[in-house]
Amino acid sequence: MALGEFDLIQRYFVRPAPRAVVGVGDDCAVLALAPGMQLAVSTDMLVEGRHFLSTVAPQHLGHKALAVNLSDLAACGAKPLAYTLALSLPRAEAAFLSGFAEGLHALADAHGIELVGGDTTAGPLNICITVMGEVPAGQALLRSGARAGDALWVSHPPGGGIGDARLALEVFRGACALPGEGFARVRQAMECPQPRVALGQALRGVASAAIDLSDGLMGDLGHVLRRSGPTGAPLGAVIRFDDLPRSAVLADQPADLQAQCLLAGGDDYELLFTAPADHQAQVLAAAQAAGVAVRRIGQLRADPGILVLDGQGQAMPTPWAGFDHFKAA
Amino acid sequence: MALGEFDLIQRYFVRPAPRAVVGVGDDCAVLALAPGMQLAVSTDMLVEGRHFLSTVAPQHLGHKALAVNLSDLAACGAKPLAYTLALSLPRAEAAFLSGFAEGLHALADAHGIELVGGDTTAGPLNICITVMGEVPAGQALLRSGARAGDALWVSHPPGGGIGDARLALEVFRGACALPGEGFARVRQAMECPQPRVALGQALRGVASAAIDLSDGLMGDLGHVLRRSGPTGAPLGAVIRFDDLPRSAVLADQPADLQAQCLLAGGDDYELLFTAPADHQAQVLAAAQAAGVAVRRIGQLRADPGILVLDGQGQAMPTPWAGFDHFKAA
Repeated sequence: MALGEFDLIQRYFVRPAPRAVVGVGDDCAVLALAPGMQLAVSTDMLVEGRHFLSTVAPQHLGHKALAVNLSDLAACGAKPLAYTLALSLPRAEAAFLSGFAEGLHALADAHGIELVGGDTTAGPLNICITVMGEVPAGQALLRSGARAGDALWVSHPPGGGIGDARLALEVFRGACALPGEGFARVRQAMECPQPRVALGQALRGVASAAIDLSDGLMGDLGHVLRRSGPTGAPLGAVIRFDDLPRSAVLADQPADLQAQCLLAGGDDYELLFTAPADHQAQVLAAAQAAGVAVRRIGQLRADPGILVLDGQGQAMPTPWAGFDHFKAA
Repeated sequence: MALGEFDLIQRYFVRPAPRAVVGVGDDCAVLALAPGMQLAVSTDMLVEGRHFLSTVAPQHLGHKALAVNLSDLAACGAKPLAYTLALSLPRAEAAFLSGFAEGLHALADAHGIELVGGDTTAGPLNICITVMGEVPAGQALLRSGARAGDALWVSHPPGGGIGDARLALEVFRGACALPGEGFARVRQAMECPQPRVALGQALRGVASAAIDLSDGLMGDLGHVLRRSGPTGAPLGAVIRFDDLPRSAVLADQPADLQAQCLLAGGDDYELLFTAPADHQAQVLAAAQAAGVAVRRIGQLRADPGILVLDGQGQAMPTPWAGFDHFKAA
């Protein structure tokens, strides 16, 4: 079915946006922030072959495109308000668009965020979402608030961990094989990440710094360490490898692959955060209030560099850098 | 020169954002709105071959990518505050990026808007910008405020008019030819549109409705007429063709081409707006305060449809629809 641009917007993307002063259909959307709130904003662009595979179901793609953006709001402790969607599509196909919209709207509804504007064009498949949220003035969680001595924490799915999305990618790449059920689980982790929006808000005033895991634990922790240290002198961290939460599927993999997925995986969209060492009870209370599991995995220190210790307390090799879209993975 | 993603961001896109609470480099940017202000937001995606040609200079592309977004803020009467940039690039090339950043930053500085966040990825060239501005609560100019009897106005460059961008496109398409100097002028109109930001703000409380000309006069006026009329009954308009402002270059073209460029051109980024017929003095004062030329080109009426009258008062044929990215142009 060939749909025009305006038909397409009308059919799949115009929905009520009752909290917006002006929603979809004007030159701009207009939003009102509650008194005392500041605006948090983030944008992410997803490209086929880079951020998703052509095999992904349209529902999952719609979910993930918004999930990775909500994860940025989570990492700064903001409450989601509204988002815009810009979509470049080779063709206006009803089967793709209805599935994409279904996944997108379901996650948006789960987090109470409204689609308030966008743009559609013909071109290579590209999805660009900008999310807006609100956070009480001065209370945004930043990457720069960590201090030497702070405990390092990570969130994880119930009974699961980080690294599953990378394991799924390795299966798609043909680098390893998994039985059907195991593959279905890690593929779910890759295609349907759950942004930790409630946890981010619960950690305001508790965590000293936070970031979402998109580039891999080592790479994202590096961002926190560089931004939190005094100018020109990044902080360091010690991670206890055995404390990293992992799924049963990942725990069954060879040691090298397991370490790569856990330490350099990427695409997890869990929160990595720091808190003063004596804030353990507050962290656990915040996690419980948000209904999200968290694990203490290490500690920050003044010595730069990231030291990963194995079960015997020995330093492990960590040859991976964070993911860079313009360098080989 | 091969640059990594983080080097690339650092080198070309990290700039001071003194008004942002948190600028580039964290999961989200954080912005504070002034008391009594609402947030206006819009997003536009530009794709090579659709919104720009491969022949465009990188400086002009940087300018235009932001200009078309600023034009949306102008159309709702908002003051620009901040923007995010998501960029998909086949390669991280210094020559392209430095030129693109130069054009982008120059226009941003001219309008006092700060780059507060973004995303870069490898992929087919795609530029997605989201702009944020502020507008006093309840004062945004909307497409829906026009009434039958209102005068119809359009802004235009000094000594110029609308339709030049379309004329330049027709030259690139080989549909017509122009002497060198004439081509340079209309190409400038296509590649370096000037968003009417000051005019939009000056028209708050004066204009009844506004839209920016991106899809062509007939198409964009149609949006205003459909949204302003009572439900299910769009308004109509009468346009006096001879009153449409046009450049000397366009005025020299054959009648058919001239009409097509003026009525269905697109890519003008001038403001099309309505105001009560007795507000002429206020409109002219607002335009003078903003330093932008405006022309009264017609009137709205209750009868639906757009009637274009020639110099003899005869109805002209108007076979063009608004531009649709998923239909043939």
